[in-house]
Amino acid sequence: MLGPQVLLVAGTHGNEINGPWLFEQWSRKPNLINTHGLNFHRVIGNPAAYKIGKRYIDRDLNRSFQEHLLIDDYPSDSEILRARELIDLYGPNGLNPSNIAIDIHSTTSSMGSSLVVYERRASDLALASLIQARLGLPIYLHEGDQTQKGFLVERWPCGLVVEIGPVSQMVVSSTIVSQIRLILEAFFKSLQEVETKTVSFPDRLIVHRHLRSLDLPKDSKGFPVACLHPDIQGKDWQPIHCGSPLFLDFDGSLFRFEEEDPLVPVFINEAAYSEKNICMSLTKREIWPMHKDWESALEKIVCS
Amino acid sequence: MLGPQVLLVAGTHGNEINGPWLFEQWSRKPNLINTHGLNFHRVIGNPAAYKIGKRYIDRDLNRSFQEHLLIDDYPSDSEILRARELIDLYGPNGLNPSNIAIDIHSTTSSMGSSLVVYERRASDLALASLIQARLGLPIYLHEGDQTQKGFLVERWPCGLVVEIGPVSQMVVSSTIVSQIRLILEAFFKSLQEVETKTVSFPDRLIVHRHLRSLDLPKDSKGFPVACLHPDIQGKDWQPIHCGSPLFLDFDGSLFRFEEEDPLVPVFINEAAYSEKNICMSLTKREIWPMHKDWESALEKIVCS
Repeated sequence: MLGPQVLLVAGTHGNEINGPWLFEQWSRKPNLINTHGLNFHRVIGNPAAYKIGKRYIDRDLNRSFQEHLLIDDYPSDSEILRARELIDLYGPNGLNPSNIAIDIHSTTSSMGSSLVVYERRASDLALASLIQARLGLPIYLHEGDQTQKGFLVERWPCGLVVEIGPVSQMVVSSTIVSQIRLILEAFFKSLQEVETKTVSFPDRLIVHRHLRSLDLPKDSKGFPVACLHPDIQGKDWQPIHCGSPLFLDFDGSLFRFEEEDPLVPVFINEAAYSEKNICMSLTKREIWPMHKDWESALEKIVCS
Repeated sequence: MLGPQVLLVAGTHGNEINGPWLFEQWSRKPNLINTHGLNFHRVIGNPAAYKIGKRYIDRDLNRSFQEHLLIDDYPSDSEILRARELIDLYGPNGLNPSNIAIDIHSTTSSMGSSLVVYERRASDLALASLIQARLGLPIYLHEGDQTQKGFLVERWPCGLVVEIGPVSQMVVSSTIVSQIRLILEAFFKSLQEVETKTVSFPDRLIVHRHLRSLDLPKDSKGFPVACLHPDIQGKDWQPIHCGSPLFLDFDGSLFRFEEEDPLVPVFINEAAYSEKNICMSLTKREIWPMHKDWESALEKIVCS
């Protein structure tokens, strides 16, 4: 029995530098984070991009873990090569086999400390529930989005994204670094409890389920004619209701949210999503009862 | 008599996108800003860098207006060529002669709306005093810094930098855009009043005079061993006193400000200054009586 083999990734986007900063401090001060005796690897996701302070070189690494990109006869670029390399080095069948991946991101949005879960893998939901129970943080369930695929953590048997903000690209913030540290300790503690069978799962999980993303209002040439309304800036996780202002154009005209059911916006004004034509994503807040098979899926991975 | 010929520059740093955003909106809605009938040109300072969302291509354009770089036999790169081009196009003897340059920047620091004046040119001080009297904003007097030279506005007979923050690189904020708009209208109104001799100068000018810049504490290999203390983050323009916390290392050790006289920090944690080894600059707040020759220097330029 190997127990949990944790892969910690930071700098998957080269201009999100708080995770890499913590890694560098931690490598010099091994006791900086209580790992509860678990095995782990730290890796900079995209070192070439990190070196030049850009999100990526050729394409977004965290959209590059798609099946068709990973096969050898697909024309390769910097990120495709790196994706293959990470799997070879740390994948479940790699040189340093890892079965749980934690990918640490920062965002210019006011997401606070949060987790992102992709689709609905049982082990991910179980692990996320433990962190939520411990820290009370919100979870964004990203699913069913045909335009956003190929996330790193999906290639590991269990994997979550940590998203913390707001922080500017290329800025180190002691607050953000402390939040990462806290959340990593929560991961290690939770996994150790699963391994030693001392864990107590919560009876429910609160998720914010992805429905769709919004773009800024644009004219026929694709030029934005309004920007985010100041009232919604910084209000990630806060429900918007029918009539809530969304956008403001410079004539003073308002664009309002016009649906009956309140929804919860996330990733409001994330700098890097502008090129993806996303100014926020809309989610539905749901409370799910825990499932026994989620727990056993996680236990199986942790105790394999 | 030509009157004031105003050159408005935005995107001198390609990842500071609020100024360019406003320019694009404004070019579509000519009445967006009240220019009080003055002549002006708008230009994107570094279009190549703006296009790829980077501060610069080869070197910081806003340090490239140094005499030795501008002469033809100096080896050129993207920014040196652009600096020469801007002077050829909009310099006081250029194709579109301009005598007043306003260079619009944004910053990740919490500078609010502020002005930067370089060295102590009489006309700059006079113009800054009018904006300060109108809007009540702080002025950073950058002078005597041998490591930071060659600013764009210094090549025009009168020129100021507008610095507004906090905003992440690559993020458009309606608040920041509105602040730019307000400050541009204050410039146009003030210059019109000088031109029509209806101006009333204040009797004093409050400046924050640059003394020196601080770097993060680093080890012998240049690796930072601490980050900015959370208590100072976001506290631009607020005096620090003997004992004020500056930096925090991950053992919890504090580095404190240890001088007797209180100083005023600016550009705290500006993302782009990390590569310049600057985590803040320290200034001394001073109240200067107005000088008649500052006023006449500005009047001479405006009414030339």
